[in-house]
Amino acid sequence: MTFLSLDHANRIIAAALTRGQELGLKPLTVAVLDPGGHLIALQRQDSSSNLRPGIATGKASGALALGVSSRKIGEMAADRPSFVGALGTIAPAGIVPSAGGVIVVDADGRVIGAVGVTGDVADNDELCALAGIAAAGLTAQA
Amino acid sequence: MTFLSLDHANRIIAAALTRGQELGLKPLTVAVLDPGGHLIALQRQDSSSNLRPGIATGKASGALALGVSSRKIGEMAADRPSFVGALGTIAPAGIVPSAGGVIVVDADGRVIGAVGVTGDVADNDELCALAGIAAAGLTAQA
Amino acid sequence: MTFLSLDHANRIIAAALTRGQELGLKPLTVAVLDPGGHLIALQRQDSSSNLRPGIATGKASGALALGVSSRKIGEMAADRPSFVGALGTIAPAGIVPSAGGVIVVDADGRVIGAVGVTGDVADNDELCALAGIAAAGLTAQA
Amino acid sequence: MTFLSLDHANRIIAAALTRGQELGLKPLTVAVLDPGGHLIALQRQDSSSNLRPGIATGKASGALALGVSSRKIGEMAADRPSFVGALGTIAPAGIVPSAGGVIVVDADGRVIGAVGVTGDVADNDELCALAGIAAAGLTAQA
Repeated sequence: MTFLSLDHANRIIAAALTRGQELGLKPLTVAVLDPGGHLIALQRQDSSSNLRPGIATGKASGALALGVSSRKIGEMAADRPSFVGALGTIAPAGIVPSAGGVIVVDADGRVIGAVGVTGDVADNDELCALAGIAAAGLTAQA
Repeated sequence: MTFLSLDHANRIIAAALTRGQELGLKPLTVAVLDPGGHLIALQRQDSSSNLRPGIATGKASGALALGVSSRKIGEMAADRPSFVGALGTIAPAGIVPSAGGVIVVDADGRVIGAVGVTGDVADNDELCALAGIAAAGLTAQA
Repeated sequence: MTFLSLDHANRIIAAALTRGQELGLKPLTVAVLDPGGHLIALQRQDSSSNLRPGIATGKASGALALGVSSRKIGEMAADRPSFVGALGTIAPAGIVPSAGGVIVVDADGRVIGAVGVTGDVADNDELCALAGIAAAGLTAQA
Repeated sequence: MTFLSLDHANRIIAAALTRGQELGLKPLTVAVLDPGGHLIALQRQDSSSNLRPGIATGKASGALALGVSSRKIGEMAADRPSFVGALGTIAPAGIVPSAGGVIVVDADGRVIGAVGVTGDVADNDELCALAGIAAAGLTAQA
């Protein structure tokens, strides 16, 4: 089982922010969490608004809470809004049902953490999360 | 009044997990609560994600909170989403409006506890809850 | 890195409860948590009161939160009550500063989970946690 | 008014962690907050336990909440434990009454953010916070 270290987390964030810059996105906030939903590292770019750390964390921790990406949670929320809303009240860091929260797995498919990105439109946030994970030599959950 | 003992709870969980295995379901989490909504026993299978204990508990405690199965609460939530959402914020363990939370009654129809199952689709979760209750020689609330 | 499976957790609980019975202790509640502080399994013996699941969980999750046993947190609380009290308000599952919460480590000393026991006096609770961990072939953090 | 940018925050964290390494301290977690108490950046070193992000944040946000360092809040808590405890329950991120949370000011003495460090004994945590602030060319509140 690979361990998601602080060094990994810093590389994920640096690459995600670089990707955002290449794509000309708005200021981003990127959070990297351990499998239990606890922060390893977070960076919020200048002018990214003040709930962004909570949103980035909530995308990633929601993904870990339910075992699927926050994109899939967004689809669940479209179908079953009351169910997903109810889960938000029992998850200490909330559940943000919008793309940009991606689970990181090891070579055996075991969960080793998650990345959450927010600041631009959700599809772009997710692109940056994926770029960060790839740049650190890690794998996003399929 | 029959008492829902730890021995009952362990038998309920074992039978619910066995039923899940027979049906080829995803990893499950099963919680058994006393009539006050407090845990008697819980088991989370390997690879069941980290909010599953909260979801299983919230299905069962929601059922006890309102006196009906979490399936019926799901129907209420479809009709009256704001009402069910509001209840979730005043229920310490939340209210999860999705099938799989089933009240257990004694021979006189008195509530002696509840079972909550999560991990697969809600209908399958409920099948496992019912199988567990039956295997322990107890009765699900009609 | 060893993984603390449901099978491990069930063996820990069974052995902890057996040890309690051998010692003639009061009814116990035993919780086993993953490294992120999320329940894997819990059992509350008949007549163990209704906050016991929260206490068992809070001993174990507090240990994981601070990286030391709940016995050491109890010593910290005697010296610095306001500090430990303040931490309780920011830990979702609370921090219970009393012996009986023990971290489980793998062969390399890495945290793989924690056990919390409550119901008798704290020293006895801890004996049962340690007995459970040993019976499952695992190691308590020194 | 100087602005505490992400670039400043990253330099503060890097220097604080370097200082910890030079002093041979335990693994640290460092948080940098804006004047509103919202995260700009956070890093948790490997093996730093899972509440450390909350503790680092709570030291810094408590300092901002009351306008003095968390060292002074610790002194307040020794004199008036109920008062400081009560404030913790109304502060969303809590108030951690222990040295290591330091307010950052601009040349005119205006608050531009705060740094929180946790992981070793409180006096050492504070040394690292101060080293980080100095290394970024900023000023700690006297």
